Amino acid sequence: MDILNSVLNFIDYNFYFSLFATIPEHTDADTSLVLASILLSLVIIYFASKLGGEICARIDLPPVLGELVGGVIIGTSILGLLVFPEGMNTANNSLIMKFLQFTADVTPGNIQSIFDSQGEIISILSELGVIILLFEIGLESNLKELISVGPQSVMVAVAGVVTPFMLGTLGLTYLFHIDIIPSIFAGAALTATSIGITAKVLAELGNLSSPEGQIIIGAAVLDDILGIIVLAVVASLMKTGQVEVLNIVYLSLTAAVFLIGAIFIGRLLHPVYVKLVNKMKTRGQLLLISLCFAFVLSYIAQIIHLETILGSFAAGLVLAETEKRKELQDLIAPISDIFVPIFFVCVGAKTDLSVLNPTDPSNREGLVLAGFLILVAVIGKVISGFTIIGQSELNKLAIGVGMIPRGEVGLVFVGVGSASGVLSKPIEASIIVMVIFTTFLAPLLLRSILKEPFFTPQKQKIT
Amino acid sequence: MDILNSVLNFIDYNFYFSLFATIPEHTDADTSLVLASILLSLVIIYFASKLGGEICARIDLPPVLGELVGGVIIGTSILGLLVFPEGMNTANNSLIMKFLQFTADVTPGNIQSIFDSQGEIISILSELGVIILLFEIGLESNLKELISVGPQSVMVAVAGVVTPFMLGTLGLTYLFHIDIIPSIFAGAALTATSIGITAKVLAELGNLSSPEGQIIIGAAVLDDILGIIVLAVVASLMKTGQVEVLNIVYLSLTAAVFLIGAIFIGRLLHPVYVKLVNKMKTRGQLLLISLCFAFVLSYIAQIIHLETILGSFAAGLVLAETEKRKELQDLIAPISDIFVPIFFVCVGAKTDLSVLNPTDPSNREGLVLAGFLILVAVIGKVISGFTIIGQSELNKLAIGVGMIPRGEVGLVFVGVGSASGVLSKPIEASIIVMVIFTTFLAPLLLRSILKEPFFTPQKQKIT
Repeated sequence: MDILNSVLNFIDYNFYFSLFATIPEHTDADTSLVLASILLSLVIIYFASKLGGEICARIDLPPVLGELVGGVIIGTSILGLLVFPEGMNTANNSLIMKFLQFTADVTPGNIQSIFDSQGEIISILSELGVIILLFEIGLESNLKELISVGPQSVMVAVAGVVTPFMLGTLGLTYLFHIDIIPSIFAGAALTATSIGITAKVLAELGNLSSPEGQIIIGAAVLDDILGIIVLAVVASLMKTGQVEVLNIVYLSLTAAVFLIGAIFIGRLLHPVYVKLVNKMKTRGQLLLISLCFAFVLSYIAQIIHLETILGSFAAGLVLAETEKRKELQDLIAPISDIFVPIFFVCVGAKTDLSVLNPTDPSNREGLVLAGFLILVAVIGKVISGFTIIGQSELNKLAIGVGMIPRGEVGLVFVGVGSASGVLSKPIEASIIVMVIFTTFLAPLLLRSILKEPFFTPQKQKIT
Repeated sequence: MDILNSVLNFIDYNFYFSLFATIPEHTDADTSLVLASILLSLVIIYFASKLGGEICARIDLPPVLGELVGGVIIGTSILGLLVFPEGMNTANNSLIMKFLQFTADVTPGNIQSIFDSQGEIISILSELGVIILLFEIGLESNLKELISVGPQSVMVAVAGVVTPFMLGTLGLTYLFHIDIIPSIFAGAALTATSIGITAKVLAELGNLSSPEGQIIIGAAVLDDILGIIVLAVVASLMKTGQVEVLNIVYLSLTAAVFLIGAIFIGRLLHPVYVKLVNKMKTRGQLLLISLCFAFVLSYIAQIIHLETILGSFAAGLVLAETEKRKELQDLIAPISDIFVPIFFVCVGAKTDLSVLNPTDPSNREGLVLAGFLILVAVIGKVISGFTIIGQSELNKLAIGVGMIPRGEVGLVFVGVGSASGVLSKPIEASIIVMVIFTTFLAPLLLRSILKEPFFTPQKQKIT
């Protein structure tokens, strides 16, 4: 090849320069190093999520708790492997960037821009993760079931949203003198209920089809819808900063109209959707059409100042009613497996739990705040069980306790709150501790309550 | 809530400011608008890929061709929907950005940074797409089958790599006076063979198990391995810029050692992998462990100056030998369905085909170049069929023609070349036209050759 080079030197190829010659517009060093940092980040995220999830699965705790704690451990609070360019963080705080510098040729000037790009890209992947999570939750919901939910479930769901929200928001503003917008947001985060965790415990103890089980499941499904509307409204409040009754009414109406409108228009489009999918011949047609539908609704929700996840949730609800539901669920599962852990781990990694370190006296207020949120989170939901009038044969305590775990739904609130930048670190950390604590506590409490036979005459078996 | 606000105004909460108050570190406007632009881009990418793919599937052409052409149409050459911040492009050139500005509140100052972020993120998703594509190709390959490939296949594969590479590289440097590195790269791009397209035509005509069919499949599988080693070496040459015999030998050895080393170490780890997957209890364990393995190998390939895709291909080859192969293929298919079209469409969208517009006289040289590449692409592979000595009963023309389509493998070359920034626009456009033309031509030629009965005594049926 040396010969070729020499030959070329003889030829006057200036004439061709403008047309064919090497014009390096940009080197690929940056793009390929950013890609390398993303690959490294994903490996670490998946490792943390699986390690945490597996440990939790083995001690009978919800795996989502393990994924979150895995994120906290690799994140800014403890190991500093996965940190994001927010606040004071620079590339120097990130062990991933140090490893990249150690293994690849990165100039010190480049590392900061790689760090910024990595943070932005992982954040977007995490946002896509929560969009897909809500799409999957929507797809698993059943609108017909929801409409036939009994009045008791409606009572429990509404009380379980209103009580913790009011107690939380008023407590934070009056007792803790926190700004109104963060207070409302923290109150809203208290309204979430994770159906999966309670359903698993109920199934495990053979109580899923008991009256209590049915009320809890109905209430939790309704709670998903109420919760996501509350979240959309509150997140929108955070953007505009205007806490006025009219604004709140307007936003609530927008969210409700969007959700109901999407469902009705979606129903009209069912035949078109099924026909289109059946007529297409290329690979992945069902998945891509469904995802496009979810992304379009997410985009619309975003530009009318609601949240993207309200759009993907609505898309899931709509497609759950078509004959393609089962097939789509199977296809979306692997997508969810690779995207959702990014979200859970990032929520953990972004939260600075060191602001709640009890050995530092200046953290006392933050710890009191976390304690208050946990108290309200438990009391607010337990009360909801006792809103059922009469029916003394029902185990109302079990119903209330079944509504306690915030799980992945609580984390969606934390994720949105964190992205808004409106929450202070202690509030964010307190909310996440509340989510961890309720998710951890509920299965233990529920098991101990349901195992006492005199409380649950409908129980089918005791394990 | 107005009352609450007024109450708050009475309270001196300066004391709490540092701890609890609203500290907006950054607004979420940017992140959420970047997310919106990504959702929009993905919808457009999926739409273009499916529309193109479906049209091609209906006129009996490979769908991948449609995805590529769909990308060209929405890209910088024609519609300008999806353009990337490379060269002269600004947010003003992107219809997606204009749509975003029209539908969401974006300040003119923000739009350029959103455009840059969108370009970077879609490019990274496209790179993840090609990593997953090569992982899937590796997973579909069969090392045992490859080792048992007949000497005729080896002859055809080697001749089909060497002939177009030499003809292309020498022709470009001597006839067109193009720089040595772009010439070598274009020559390398000529070596690719897409097994899928030929296999489909052979299967359709009932010729897959004929001796010709078996030779073509064997040669194409071997060609995948040779091609990816060539690509890794050439891409590395482009990074270092040193075209010296010693450097080429060193890089080729590194690539071969990496691939063989990964396969051998991978084989030792088989039992650990299977045991780990079987012992894990949480969702998505097989998928995440396998992807982590692919990502780690990709990272290693990247930092030793080869290409990430060599790593994911090696990972696919290794995992194809385990008992989990079938299960993993089913799980990776939906992932591939959502990631790979991003890659194909981006390759099309990034290529500026207007540099080959025949109505502009200054494009004459570029058109001649494209014509030359097509000629070499066809002749180089047809010759390979005639390297089989004796065996006059074989249809050697059919074997050579079967090796012509570049398909997705050719696009991988274009993608890598484009990311390097070393190729001039006319060369890049010529390579992509060569890929389109060969992919389009081969099925037509192969069908017409195989349908003439006197050429193919082994044929089982004629459709």
